[in-house]
Amino acid sequence: MTTFDDIAPQLEHQAIEVPSWAYGNSGTRFKVFGSPGTPRTVEEKIDDAATVHRFTGLAPKVALHIPWDLVDNFSALRRHAEDQGVAIGTINSNTFQDDDYKLGGLTHHDEAVRQKAIDHHLQCIEVMYATGSKDLKIWLADGSNYPGQADMRSRQDRLADSLQRIHAELDAEQRLVLEYKIFEPAFYHTDVPDWGTALLHVQALGENAVVCLDTGHHAPSTNVEFIVAQLLRAGKLGSFDFNSRNYADDDLIVGSADPFQLFRILFEVIRGGGYEPDSGVAFMLDQCHNIEKKIPGQIRSVLNVQEMTARALLVDREALAEAQQAGDVLGAHETFMDAFYTDVRGDLAAWRESRGLPAEPMKAYAASGHQETIEADRVGGTQMSW
Amino acid sequence: MTTFDDIAPQLEHQAIEVPSWAYGNSGTRFKVFGSPGTPRTVEEKIDDAATVHRFTGLAPKVALHIPWDLVDNFSALRRHAEDQGVAIGTINSNTFQDDDYKLGGLTHHDEAVRQKAIDHHLQCIEVMYATGSKDLKIWLADGSNYPGQADMRSRQDRLADSLQRIHAELDAEQRLVLEYKIFEPAFYHTDVPDWGTALLHVQALGENAVVCLDTGHHAPSTNVEFIVAQLLRAGKLGSFDFNSRNYADDDLIVGSADPFQLFRILFEVIRGGGYEPDSGVAFMLDQCHNIEKKIPGQIRSVLNVQEMTARALLVDREALAEAQQAGDVLGAHETFMDAFYTDVRGDLAAWRESRGLPAEPMKAYAASGHQETIEADRVGGTQMSW
Amino acid sequence: MTTFDDIAPQLEHQAIEVPSWAYGNSGTRFKVFGSPGTPRTVEEKIDDAATVHRFTGLAPKVALHIPWDLVDNFSALRRHAEDQGVAIGTINSNTFQDDDYKLGGLTHHDEAVRQKAIDHHLQCIEVMYATGSKDLKIWLADGSNYPGQADMRSRQDRLADSLQRIHAELDAEQRLVLEYKIFEPAFYHTDVPDWGTALLHVQALGENAVVCLDTGHHAPSTNVEFIVAQLLRAGKLGSFDFNSRNYADDDLIVGSADPFQLFRILFEVIRGGGYEPDSGVAFMLDQCHNIEKKIPGQIRSVLNVQEMTARALLVDREALAEAQQAGDVLGAHETFMDAFYTDVRGDLAAWRESRGLPAEPMKAYAASGHQETIEADRVGGTQMSW
Amino acid sequence: MTTFDDIAPQLEHQAIEVPSWAYGNSGTRFKVFGSPGTPRTVEEKIDDAATVHRFTGLAPKVALHIPWDLVDNFSALRRHAEDQGVAIGTINSNTFQDDDYKLGGLTHHDEAVRQKAIDHHLQCIEVMYATGSKDLKIWLADGSNYPGQADMRSRQDRLADSLQRIHAELDAEQRLVLEYKIFEPAFYHTDVPDWGTALLHVQALGENAVVCLDTGHHAPSTNVEFIVAQLLRAGKLGSFDFNSRNYADDDLIVGSADPFQLFRILFEVIRGGGYEPDSGVAFMLDQCHNIEKKIPGQIRSVLNVQEMTARALLVDREALAEAQQAGDVLGAHETFMDAFYTDVRGDLAAWRESRGLPAEPMKAYAASGHQETIEADRVGGTQMSW
Repeated sequence: MTTFDDIAPQLEHQAIEVPSWAYGNSGTRFKVFGSPGTPRTVEEKIDDAATVHRFTGLAPKVALHIPWDLVDNFSALRRHAEDQGVAIGTINSNTFQDDDYKLGGLTHHDEAVRQKAIDHHLQCIEVMYATGSKDLKIWLADGSNYPGQADMRSRQDRLADSLQRIHAELDAEQRLVLEYKIFEPAFYHTDVPDWGTALLHVQALGENAVVCLDTGHHAPSTNVEFIVAQLLRAGKLGSFDFNSRNYADDDLIVGSADPFQLFRILFEVIRGGGYEPDSGVAFMLDQCHNIEKKIPGQIRSVLNVQEMTARALLVDREALAEAQQAGDVLGAHETFMDAFYTDVRGDLAAWRESRGLPAEPMKAYAASGHQETIEADRVGGTQMSW
Repeated sequence: MTTFDDIAPQLEHQAIEVPSWAYGNSGTRFKVFGSPGTPRTVEEKIDDAATVHRFTGLAPKVALHIPWDLVDNFSALRRHAEDQGVAIGTINSNTFQDDDYKLGGLTHHDEAVRQKAIDHHLQCIEVMYATGSKDLKIWLADGSNYPGQADMRSRQDRLADSLQRIHAELDAEQRLVLEYKIFEPAFYHTDVPDWGTALLHVQALGENAVVCLDTGHHAPSTNVEFIVAQLLRAGKLGSFDFNSRNYADDDLIVGSADPFQLFRILFEVIRGGGYEPDSGVAFMLDQCHNIEKKIPGQIRSVLNVQEMTARALLVDREALAEAQQAGDVLGAHETFMDAFYTDVRGDLAAWRESRGLPAEPMKAYAASGHQETIEADRVGGTQMSW
Repeated sequence: MTTFDDIAPQLEHQAIEVPSWAYGNSGTRFKVFGSPGTPRTVEEKIDDAATVHRFTGLAPKVALHIPWDLVDNFSALRRHAEDQGVAIGTINSNTFQDDDYKLGGLTHHDEAVRQKAIDHHLQCIEVMYATGSKDLKIWLADGSNYPGQADMRSRQDRLADSLQRIHAELDAEQRLVLEYKIFEPAFYHTDVPDWGTALLHVQALGENAVVCLDTGHHAPSTNVEFIVAQLLRAGKLGSFDFNSRNYADDDLIVGSADPFQLFRILFEVIRGGGYEPDSGVAFMLDQCHNIEKKIPGQIRSVLNVQEMTARALLVDREALAEAQQAGDVLGAHETFMDAFYTDVRGDLAAWRESRGLPAEPMKAYAASGHQETIEADRVGGTQMSW
Repeated sequence: MTTFDDIAPQLEHQAIEVPSWAYGNSGTRFKVFGSPGTPRTVEEKIDDAATVHRFTGLAPKVALHIPWDLVDNFSALRRHAEDQGVAIGTINSNTFQDDDYKLGGLTHHDEAVRQKAIDHHLQCIEVMYATGSKDLKIWLADGSNYPGQADMRSRQDRLADSLQRIHAELDAEQRLVLEYKIFEPAFYHTDVPDWGTALLHVQALGENAVVCLDTGHHAPSTNVEFIVAQLLRAGKLGSFDFNSRNYADDDLIVGSADPFQLFRILFEVIRGGGYEPDSGVAFMLDQCHNIEKKIPGQIRSVLNVQEMTARALLVDREALAEAQQAGDVLGAHETFMDAFYTDVRGDLAAWRESRGLPAEPMKAYAASGHQETIEADRVGGTQMSW
């Protein structure tokens, strides 16, 4: 029987990267709702990320998105972050918002557009050198809407070439992290729709090329934790984009749609060594707080990951292995569920307090008056959005 | 054996309503791409609809969306349309783009917001009286993103009340058409997610309340033609929003993703009497031409409907019934497929020509220079978008 | 704040109907595995159901399936059940295993086959009179595999007629419960695929015709709790067939695939009055224990329903309503989740003990030696199967 | 503009492998319907396969399933096939119908069971040597039904080891073909659920290990033709199991559910070189004729593949490439659709006749009296089934 005290030490090193864009306004194709207190500058986004870290101790890094987070002086931005107690994490490229990318970027049939997309990634790598970021994450919006519109095969060849040229600019400490997504914004085919495709590309690039698994980027019914186990076994799981979905890439708060799935995913992460401090697996959020407040939305999210990590650590793996080895279907399942059903919230609150953190971060944030302050202060300017 | 000549007379009365918003810019949450020649005014959108009709003879009506198509003088707009050879069709309401509607409209827990949403529909009804439109189509973006966020049950009660108050303002010739959608922009629940829910509401309203079936608004694997048959049998199929989907509500060109599905749907429409001139079923498009040119995109769409209607009419229903009655699985299926596999394009071209229309509308449009003209003329102003 | 003591009284009247067929062998089209201790007679199946009730206090009724559970003397079977401490519940008809039903039963194009299917239901009604059962549950395997194979529309008409003739034989105390299912064994269309279709048919029959919701019979991504709310609002939710699914109609142990979904469903049941003692909603299991032991599989299942019912009852509905009314998205969601995350297992164990039941039924069953006894005793004969 | 005459030569080498099991009875978990004329012996199954080839010229090989097709003398069986004009194709293993395989075969935690499963494959390899078959196809039913039931990670390790030991027994001319499937008969996880997993395993084995793509084994919404393109690009597409699905692994007649998908798949096959005579891609059917007659069901199937191959060959690839390179979305799509919409049936009938085959194989088979003959002759004995 594993107890909270047994697992508490393993909670120490948990670190979740939050995305700068989660603090800006987001929405659906139908409407992006504004909300009071939304950052107007990259610095204010970093401030919000730092606030999440201050209340939870869980979010020491913030991921940037280029060009959304372009600033003149990235060294200054890095110092600003450090002053707030956080570091710059993954750099995310963006080849989906320029008119030239209407029919693709790194896969584009027009060499000029493709070169532009490659150059954009080289610029991202410069940002990495300036900020100390180690990961370049590439999510492609590339794809097509109509059968016949594009030649899927040659696009793969061009993608391979583009990635190689980008990868060549990374040093050995830096990583290229390739994300896959089944659909959206393209609606017939996407050029990296599944983990198999991402795997083939990073295999071709080398050791420091890995895959990013966004939990909302799969077909309905996909067993996501299996893919986690598989990528870990292949040594190719680079990072997570955590969020929840019920239908498509809904980008909801992680753990809100199916907490048991989050538990299963984290169990496989632990099982496969991905939770070890040196595993190289980066835990990131990628969410859209379309209707809820953004800072508490992020606090809720990192807490959900922490709570489910604790539950997953609580699985009595010895008893589990024994039941599995005995072919005891119900017994093994029950051992697994026991951990999931264990309410760790009280223990976690005490543990947080013992480390100088608020016992209940959501309540502490609400009571802090911080939200009211930023809503009052951040008036004028243009709210950041995507 | 049914021949093209047998069915040609039935093609005469085919009429497809095109949506004004198809001519404006649209896109995904990631990007709305602009395109040269896009209308800057409601009048220019109507001109584009009229162009589609001129080249195809298939699109005599254009649906409006309020407030996107709000003008000061709807009588003048009506005359403008008539001068171009088209009429104003369905009026679509919009309760998803005002900040007040963040958590709902006709279902909102705040009576003030709900009243505002109701009032918006009364304004739409005024537009109907001014334009001669007979149908008020209501698609609700209402729903919630998180379990517990909203009380689904009381929202149904409020929706029923809202609809009743709107319906009360319609005269006996006018119809309330309620659309359903499984998700988006809400990602946990929507308040009218399926045809069963829409049915219950229109049953409560009365004879002149009917359901709109958007072909892209269902869960994966849903047999859409079965729902068509069912709604026709219940006397409650009011209209179609035609489009194609591969994943979610992709709003692609109708017939482009699965032409056989379009064939099956049109077969059930015909089978159930929905293609009869007096059936009351309105055939509408609801699409987004995110990356393709909009006018030829619409021409392609109405042609797809026409071609599949012709194929569906070609089904030898006598032979089919005989095989079905004999329990001849392969024989009945083959009779059905025979019609689908028949290439009607040559016959249709000749038939169009005989009626003074271009034999091949896509080629005729391309050759006409119209696209170049509007691209050159429509410079300055603000492109219409949603 | 709602406590376990507040809700304990409401647990008293919980009653879950177990299916006789869960104790027989089941499997997939690939293989039905036998298992030691499987009943050879209807009586032994009832004994197993009674065992589940003895260990849990939750399963006072057992549903029968005709012809699987045909016996010469149903009065004797009823007495046998009563002697074991359980009652006969719902009678399930079966029109999918006779060669005549290859192309349908109640919808069949051949009047002789259709009459045979109707007559089978009249026989079921006789069993109801003999056993005191109040519910006739009809699940149709009817459908087609190929487009064109069958005339979907006339099948609806024949179904309506068949149901009317069956319904006419029920007395006012008895109910016709119509189940829907999206697919399987038919793979193109099924004749009652969704709740909307089931609703139309039971509306046509009258007050004592209601719908059965099997939690595994929906398209991927369907919000099942919404349908629960909707059917309750319409007064047409007759019963549940509980089970779990990941992909299709997997018929797994209820709550095993997505415990949070079970929580949400039970919350809507309670919210809509369906958990009231006089609600008329019957809670049934419909599962296949293909690889796990059957009696403990059923014990696990009824416990899962009980545990999630307790959690759902724990929702602080006053606080929830307040947060909902305030438009507090995160607050309302958190109130909802608080109940789900509360570990009720200890309280439930104590509560069971206080009522003379085993604190931990799974352990008590394992320790009882009952499984070993039936495995030793039930040798020879033919194991019941479907 | 590509014409039928241009492509006719490429139709010459088309060869589709038919499965012996398609001629036996099959069904769902609910019922396997028998049908008159069903083979009682392996030889009769081969006779039926030969009949399909005689009427179509398309099916020169028949795949076997071990142990379903176990005979004492495989050399004699091979001669029997050759006498009928067909050859023995792929050998399919089966580790899902023995009681020992309840919890797995090649992945089993019990070394004795795993060894048995490996040994079964060695037996299959012996059959390959005896029959001249070059392909060993492995589809695993392995998986689990409940989270926690099995250790997914160590099962991968055992699978890799099992495959290596099997692969070691093949000679350089023989291939190991690994099939993937998202679910069924396992309902929580399967050990080879997707092409990525299959790819990793065959990569580890070597050149003569390849992947089998069953068109019905994917999650809803999966773009199957993309996977075809991807596996061809990686040099790892070994064979197809063709069939149709609407929901799960429905195993319907290929092309019946979505003919346009079949067209798109065949286009990518051609585009990627998979249709070249020396490509090594084997085209197989894997279907269940649950309710339709089996021989004409197979004839219909191979004709569907032929008709869609012809349409796919008709794509004007030069015009297509030009439109794609010009970024002409609608033009490229239209060029693609032009081929799909072309009715090739008349040309194919003439072409068949010119080669001494029946112009219309379905009609010819119906007129031949063959079905009546086997129904009259094949009385007594036990119908083959699975």
